[in-house]
Amino acid sequence: MRTVIVNATVVTMNKNGDVYHPGFVMFEDDVITMAGEMKDLEEKAGHLDAKLIDGKNGILIPGMVNLHTHMGMVPFRGLGDDCKDRLRVFLIPMEQKAMDQELVYLSTRYAAGEMLLAGVTTVMDMYYYEEEAAKAMDEMGMRAIAGQTVMDEGACDFKDPKEALSYGENLIKKYLNHPRITACIAPHGTTTCSPEVLKEAYRIDSSYEVPFTLHTAEMDYEMEYLEKEKQMTPVGYLDSIGVLGKDTLAAHCIHMTEEDLDLLKERRASVAHCIGSNTKAAKGVAPVSGMNKREIAVGLGTDGPASGNTLDILTQMKLCADFHKNETKDRSAFPASDIVKMATIQGAAALGLDGITGSLEPGKQADLVLIETDSVNMFPVYDPYSALVYSANPSNVEAVYVAGECLVEGKRLKKNDMEEIRRSLINKMKHTDFGKYIENKQELDV
Amino acid sequence: MRTVIVNATVVTMNKNGDVYHPGFVMFEDDVITMAGEMKDLEEKAGHLDAKLIDGKNGILIPGMVNLHTHMGMVPFRGLGDDCKDRLRVFLIPMEQKAMDQELVYLSTRYAAGEMLLAGVTTVMDMYYYEEEAAKAMDEMGMRAIAGQTVMDEGACDFKDPKEALSYGENLIKKYLNHPRITACIAPHGTTTCSPEVLKEAYRIDSSYEVPFTLHTAEMDYEMEYLEKEKQMTPVGYLDSIGVLGKDTLAAHCIHMTEEDLDLLKERRASVAHCIGSNTKAAKGVAPVSGMNKREIAVGLGTDGPASGNTLDILTQMKLCADFHKNETKDRSAFPASDIVKMATIQGAAALGLDGITGSLEPGKQADLVLIETDSVNMFPVYDPYSALVYSANPSNVEAVYVAGECLVEGKRLKKNDMEEIRRSLINKMKHTDFGKYIENKQELDV
Ligand SMILES: [Zn+2]
Ligand SMILES: [Zn+2]
Repeated sequence: MRTVIVNATVVTMNKNGDVYHPGFVMFEDDVITMAGEMKDLEEKAGHLDAKLIDGKNGILIPGMVNLHTHMGMVPFRGLGDDCKDRLRVFLIPMEQKAMDQELVYLSTRYAAGEMLLAGVTTVMDMYYYEEEAAKAMDEMGMRAIAGQTVMDEGACDFKDPKEALSYGENLIKKYLNHPRITACIAPHGTTTCSPEVLKEAYRIDSSYEVPFTLHTAEMDYEMEYLEKEKQMTPVGYLDSIGVLGKDTLAAHCIHMTEEDLDLLKERRASVAHCIGSNTKAAKGVAPVSGMNKREIAVGLGTDGPASGNTLDILTQMKLCADFHKNETKDRSAFPASDIVKMATIQGAAALGLDGITGSLEPGKQADLVLIETDSVNMFPVYDPYSALVYSANPSNVEAVYVAGECLVEGKRLKKNDMEEIRRSLINKMKHTDFGKYIENKQELDV
Repeated sequence: MRTVIVNATVVTMNKNGDVYHPGFVMFEDDVITMAGEMKDLEEKAGHLDAKLIDGKNGILIPGMVNLHTHMGMVPFRGLGDDCKDRLRVFLIPMEQKAMDQELVYLSTRYAAGEMLLAGVTTVMDMYYYEEEAAKAMDEMGMRAIAGQTVMDEGACDFKDPKEALSYGENLIKKYLNHPRITACIAPHGTTTCSPEVLKEAYRIDSSYEVPFTLHTAEMDYEMEYLEKEKQMTPVGYLDSIGVLGKDTLAAHCIHMTEEDLDLLKERRASVAHCIGSNTKAAKGVAPVSGMNKREIAVGLGTDGPASGNTLDILTQMKLCADFHKNETKDRSAFPASDIVKMATIQGAAALGLDGITGSLEPGKQADLVLIETDSVNMFPVYDPYSALVYSANPSNVEAVYVAGECLVEGKRLKKNDMEEIRRSLINKMKHTDFGKYIENKQELDV
């Protein structure tokens, strides 16, 4: 089927930075076939045997890419937010007690709905029981990489990291020929996995040419441990054991030396920048200027709902601009167009998907987001990049397509029912340890 | 008329930090008469001869306070956002060419609608032709202080600061007995006004006991100039000429010494913290920890739509938490409850209005905001403060009351028509220099 979205400001994010105003994007089934100025539509497209969708002067952008999150963690959102050592006091124990396959599935469905409604079409997820997550993301119609997390000390799904590795490899195989879903093994972090586990995960991921992602240079104790035990930085350490390569997506990369940045560049590794999560946790601001200078593929991640709370990339865009402008003491640094790049084509490149998504160009998948400009916060629009970064919020997302399929229309999920998804998640949570917080609003005893 | 909002999580922001869950707030005409737990409603309230409004498990908070903005500047939003010296290259020339009384009126109506829809019920505005702004804010039903701006070099309204001072004094008199609107003279800044103008403005404002507000310790050139010419900091300078007092609201206060902070405390001056605007402009982060330590009344401001782009306080709350946690390297610093204080009761205190608004307590004005928790980003809610600061966005604002009058219902303006307000503003802009950007999407030549 041929569809044309007309009368929108089309922000292509192609190499030329073309913006068509007013413009159109045409796609046939799942593939974009044409994009351009409205005045060229009739001429270029010939007789328009197509479904026309009115963009109503909105801003049409490539679907946004969320490079790092933990979709199974919706039940944790807002739990103990300002607590000092929340991870060890709260998240890990609750994960051990309450997390199971069904909860991962239901939470991931919820997170997928939330992200789609906010214009995120591609996500790199990492969590436990990731087969459930993959199933949920597939059913929701997203483009996703499902990363099975492995930790030495074991997790809610597997006590033995070997089992997790083998579960992960089976998951990779299961999705090898899927049009939207890829699986991979996503070890937890540089110090929470032994070198053997890291190397084995990397070997498996590389052999299937899928991404390898892990938490890197994020935590104070991580930095101290590697300095003390190995006299190395996290990035240096990953390289020393041979797991830093073009398929490595290092999440966070807050604490970096110039040598670390050079090494990332040299190995063609990429970075998931989680500015909201990092600063809310008072961990610092990753040196993205240095990454950009080296043309390292750095995109944006929300981190999990327990860390960053929101799962939309628009909020991260604003935070990213404000933090880095302030950091570099230059109001013209990190211009809005660069921030939109990070949210789209650079994010896709970080996952090796830039041939498939991240820009509105013929031959790419029809992953599209229409941002309406009728809401009170979206007037006037002189520059669509400015409007996206400094004015927009997730409630401005009007319509979303993934691989040509309309998943959000009129700000509502089209294929799935968010109310039903929410009800199912609540019902499940009530039968777990989360229930006592939900039902009784019990004070947190931390 | 007696109204009761029932079945909400009532975040009172009273001195005890009481939260009623589930709770109610009762008001008669414009005044809150009771607030408490639902279970006490029948008992305490006796026979309920009242209009009942279902809070649907939303979060009911005091109306938010925006301590610093320029509502006449909606036409500038997004114009030249990432340009280095935008103020002098862009804003001031366009202001001189295109700004007139009608545009101030229409822009202020728009900004008031936008803020009400986002749950801002009290605003400190400062701009030119402020009589038009006062009229617009009054018609929209807001609680507001209309600050007539005065600059030595003159502005779009008056070439001579003396005329602006006298216009300002007349405006103060006009609104002396208004239930919601107060006017004041708001000199532009510490270096853009002569000491004579600053002193005269302060004398007039003080004689009517209205706030005195100005841009303070915000700009690099301001710091350099005062250091070079007076060997003083901006706060030290204001004190030296006798204009730092309990009615002084200093906007920004980015560049502060310990002595400056002590002086603010000693003089009981207050601060409008504009974190979004300051960091987007790469100006730095005001030392709010030091202000809080001294119990200086510091609240939140958006700055104008040309600077901060958004006019809602929820966005500032999130930015404020993230920036200050990161700044203090402590994830437990600036907890969500403190941020909500800044947005409500501390903001009211900064304007001397804490006896009138800023908390949900008997005797206070019924300025209320209901935040719904049905949207996808608002689940789960373990702690209402966390949900407000880390999860909410302006689209979650369900209902807004000012002085007991319902101004927003079901996320739409009730008393005024936002579509008409927008159309009027666009029509007017088309007949000014803004028109060429709106009509032709002309590239900015800066
Ligand atoms: Zn993470
Ligand atoms: Zn200002």
